[in-house]
Amino acid sequence: MDYNDRVWTEKERQERLLSRKNTIDDSFYNGIFRRYTYPVLTRDHVPLSWRYDFSRERNPYFMERLGVNAVFNSGALYRDGKYYLVARVEGNDRKSFFAVAESTSPVDGFRFTHPVVLPDTCPDETNVYDMRLTQHQDGWIYGVFCSERHDDSSPDISQAVASAGIVRTKDLQTWERLDNLVTLRSPQQRNVCLFPEFVDGKYAFFTRPMDSFIETGSGGGIGFGLSESIEHAVIDNEIITSRRRYHTITESKNGAGAVPIKTEKGWLHIAHGVRNTAAGLRYVIYVFVTALDKPWHVIAEPGGLLIGPRGHERSGDVDNVVFTNGAIDTPDGHLFIYYASSDTRLHVAETTVDRMLDYAFNTPSDSLRSAEAVKQRLSLIEANKAFI
Amino acid sequence: MDYNDRVWTEKERQERLLSRKNTIDDSFYNGIFRRYTYPVLTRDHVPLSWRYDFSRERNPYFMERLGVNAVFNSGALYRDGKYYLVARVEGNDRKSFFAVAESTSPVDGFRFTHPVVLPDTCPDETNVYDMRLTQHQDGWIYGVFCSERHDDSSPDISQAVASAGIVRTKDLQTWERLDNLVTLRSPQQRNVCLFPEFVDGKYAFFTRPMDSFIETGSGGGIGFGLSESIEHAVIDNEIITSRRRYHTITESKNGAGAVPIKTEKGWLHIAHGVRNTAAGLRYVIYVFVTALDKPWHVIAEPGGLLIGPRGHERSGDVDNVVFTNGAIDTPDGHLFIYYASSDTRLHVAETTVDRMLDYAFNTPSDSLRSAEAVKQRLSLIEANKAFI
Amino acid sequence: MDYNDRVWTEKERQERLLSRKNTIDDSFYNGIFRRYTYPVLTRDHVPLSWRYDFSRERNPYFMERLGVNAVFNSGALYRDGKYYLVARVEGNDRKSFFAVAESTSPVDGFRFTHPVVLPDTCPDETNVYDMRLTQHQDGWIYGVFCSERHDDSSPDISQAVASAGIVRTKDLQTWERLDNLVTLRSPQQRNVCLFPEFVDGKYAFFTRPMDSFIETGSGGGIGFGLSESIEHAVIDNEIITSRRRYHTITESKNGAGAVPIKTEKGWLHIAHGVRNTAAGLRYVIYVFVTALDKPWHVIAEPGGLLIGPRGHERSGDVDNVVFTNGAIDTPDGHLFIYYASSDTRLHVAETTVDRMLDYAFNTPSDSLRSAEAVKQRLSLIEANKAFI
Repeated sequence: MDYNDRVWTEKERQERLLSRKNTIDDSFYNGIFRRYTYPVLTRDHVPLSWRYDFSRERNPYFMERLGVNAVFNSGALYRDGKYYLVARVEGNDRKSFFAVAESTSPVDGFRFTHPVVLPDTCPDETNVYDMRLTQHQDGWIYGVFCSERHDDSSPDISQAVASAGIVRTKDLQTWERLDNLVTLRSPQQRNVCLFPEFVDGKYAFFTRPMDSFIETGSGGGIGFGLSESIEHAVIDNEIITSRRRYHTITESKNGAGAVPIKTEKGWLHIAHGVRNTAAGLRYVIYVFVTALDKPWHVIAEPGGLLIGPRGHERSGDVDNVVFTNGAIDTPDGHLFIYYASSDTRLHVAETTVDRMLDYAFNTPSDSLRSAEAVKQRLSLIEANKAFI
Repeated sequence: MDYNDRVWTEKERQERLLSRKNTIDDSFYNGIFRRYTYPVLTRDHVPLSWRYDFSRERNPYFMERLGVNAVFNSGALYRDGKYYLVARVEGNDRKSFFAVAESTSPVDGFRFTHPVVLPDTCPDETNVYDMRLTQHQDGWIYGVFCSERHDDSSPDISQAVASAGIVRTKDLQTWERLDNLVTLRSPQQRNVCLFPEFVDGKYAFFTRPMDSFIETGSGGGIGFGLSESIEHAVIDNEIITSRRRYHTITESKNGAGAVPIKTEKGWLHIAHGVRNTAAGLRYVIYVFVTALDKPWHVIAEPGGLLIGPRGHERSGDVDNVVFTNGAIDTPDGHLFIYYASSDTRLHVAETTVDRMLDYAFNTPSDSLRSAEAVKQRLSLIEANKAFI
Repeated sequence: MDYNDRVWTEKERQERLLSRKNTIDDSFYNGIFRRYTYPVLTRDHVPLSWRYDFSRERNPYFMERLGVNAVFNSGALYRDGKYYLVARVEGNDRKSFFAVAESTSPVDGFRFTHPVVLPDTCPDETNVYDMRLTQHQDGWIYGVFCSERHDDSSPDISQAVASAGIVRTKDLQTWERLDNLVTLRSPQQRNVCLFPEFVDGKYAFFTRPMDSFIETGSGGGIGFGLSESIEHAVIDNEIITSRRRYHTITESKNGAGAVPIKTEKGWLHIAHGVRNTAAGLRYVIYVFVTALDKPWHVIAEPGGLLIGPRGHERSGDVDNVVFTNGAIDTPDGHLFIYYASSDTRLHVAETTVDRMLDYAFNTPSDSLRSAEAVKQRLSLIEANKAFI
């Protein structure tokens, strides 16, 4: 195939992908959310001009010069009728960056518009990923992300430490970088998320404090803390909201996911939990609700997972992972959860705020023991006898 | 779709699944056993009334209230022309319980009839799983299963300890719980299996004793021990039957699987072996035979695996696992091995007792070294020259 | 099905597989190499007479007597118009051995001709695997492979130590075994590869020296060393060529792959890099070029991976692995990279030496930081504006 044909072929191939309509996956039903047939973003959605050099002279074989390995964990925002995703794009070199994609549909048609240029204020920052996008009460859109660097205190060249980077923007184009979050009692942070409203006049964050190994079995969980300033954010005390617990889907770790969604019955959190298996860690998505007036106080936490990896989702660069850091609730009450599978691609789950509240408040909470779980199920079976 | 349509649709969908005929998977042949196209039990086989609240008032969205994540490792029993499975059913909350399914066919048509209610005699028992069903000489059907609780001696909230729980029944409906097995020299037990006959007038168990780290390279393996009583079972000495061995499919661990099957040439054991890989532990199924008069004494152990994960079996909640804790030999000599793949679903492998004995006694044993394995193969190739 | 029908059926099934034409996988494009639809070698390619006993008397069920679990990592050689592979064949018993397959086509039609009989000179050698085939300047074809034995200094029965075994042949039929390589400063070796030319009149090897944990963060990498003798090969000093580096595809380990290919611009190396994930190690293939006159000196190393696991390649006995230890460059400039996926099957990637050099010298090198990677990409996007 000659050069021009090849370019044309690849452009056509991508255009077919970008204009493909998504359809509901009818093979899946649970009444809580719907899966879609196709991912909303993949490596193949990244513009050719971000990967290929189009100069025939410099690139006679029309070869990828900067390949993309994966597109996954994405922040999400709805503005003026458009759906925006700020995805984690990982190059073939394992370095991640953020890129903005937009669509007029929540489930298909996403096209990347530009990479995010973060002011390079941390010289030892090696990698950035998993941005949560918060439309804050103060008028700014904040992006809180994981900023990772080598742990120079370790002789192991693969040891990293992480903290929460903070940027803000008005238009998703120009980003101002603020100081990284300082948590005085936790030397390291991942999965930090800025709460969209002031709490006691302060900026509020969901965090992941270090476990206290002194208090045996405390287990930690998703934390919550306040900072006077956002430009120089400092959190002293972190209190635990949703806890890690033995033999649950949060046994190994848990962490904040999408920015909490305000509903009439409380703040809806779509988070992740991790357990260990003989084949490594398994990440699933779960839900809890905190009080409107005390956003750190859990008022509902349905037992078990909301979304677990299924079918092709199970396989990717890191198997058996589903993860979300972005969801959009639309003015008409729809809710779109953007979740990635196996650190490789981004999917959407569709539901409504009403359904999620029904799910959150009417699903039995985790009984923590097999014997109790059987009782829950027997009581459901018994109650159903009147109807079947 | 309105409420009634939705209910009807989901009932229809499940009925199609439950009444689907299974077919032999013709893409697989080894002369030893046959695979089937479809699993015999999956999460989708669990009755809707065990998962959904059918009250339109309480559950207007017809939403799963108690989701099921997986159906896998299953005990098995044949009685009066019916095939019974007592499967491990894992809720979305990771708590497992046992549920009985039955069919008039060994390969399809299994329908769940009821969850097993275990007397709740161990207040700190968190999870139960992997029941072996033994139709014992004493007239009872015993279920021996793993009873797990948190290891309170560890500050790690995810640390568990396991012992063998024991129940008995006459009808798979009502279950009497006996004391957990006590093994005086092994503080922990998984994969324990009750032998169906008395040995020296005592109850006999296959166990997994703790490795002796003093005796370098001893490696341990599947144990065997006797107890005077079944109501208060206590084993002092455990002796090793099939051993763990370096660079074999049992290198990391091995354990009893299905209850041993009595044949004219010995007790047929279908067990599991585990090795470690760069992607975690890999579980496969293997075979050994013990003497009729000394059921702890191995008289045949073909080298290598009988069943390894293939195709879709490789992927699930815990990748690259096949595991069995139940098999059925029918009066006409057929043998059905119920094996789960990747902790997610239950399959059947079909063979005959005659074939398994041929396999067990005529497959070369593990030569333990590449150089010897090549000799085995060259001698096969040489012998075949007369026929090809 | 009766005995003769069964034999006939299995012969037919295999013949269809062996005579199947391979086709380019059109769903994949990057301008650098092409994938093919089918693997070139799998367990099903192993001759029936290597697995089944064809004596109806001895094997009335036509049962596999020596099953093969996987066929993967393969050395490769081109001679007199024929393509030769010396693959790692793993029995159901986990013991690997080498077997020769040949074809007149580089992409299909490979048929196994014979197992390699290695002189059994190391009584404690348990397993052998991953042979690199070097057509050396001295006229011999050398095979350098991993020779593994139990680490008797460890009480853990699964602990192995590895060294580099060396054999030579003129015809791939008869193999003379030489002493294992001794590296004075590295007690253990895997992924050793003999360089095809003398360097300073000595035999040259690519090795993997032990990390120096004293020099913090040194990280090690692929080594290079010289030996006076090949019959009793001893390397004193090993110097580092391509390095392990933090947050790159070589973060956890790297190692030599195919024997380096001589080109007008340097020695082309197709190696592997490993990083750790929540689901275990992930192996990918990458490229570097060393100077013609200093084959240890890296003159080009494009950033990131050349080949990562895709689709079905991700799943196998050890998930998420691609690995190569053999490539063939033909007189007309084609290059065939034989790579295995997930320790289960062998694939081919097709390219040309010209394309690989273009890739090696014109792909930006790893920038080591997200911020720099974004700059690389923005500059590509900017340059493309003139063309789109």
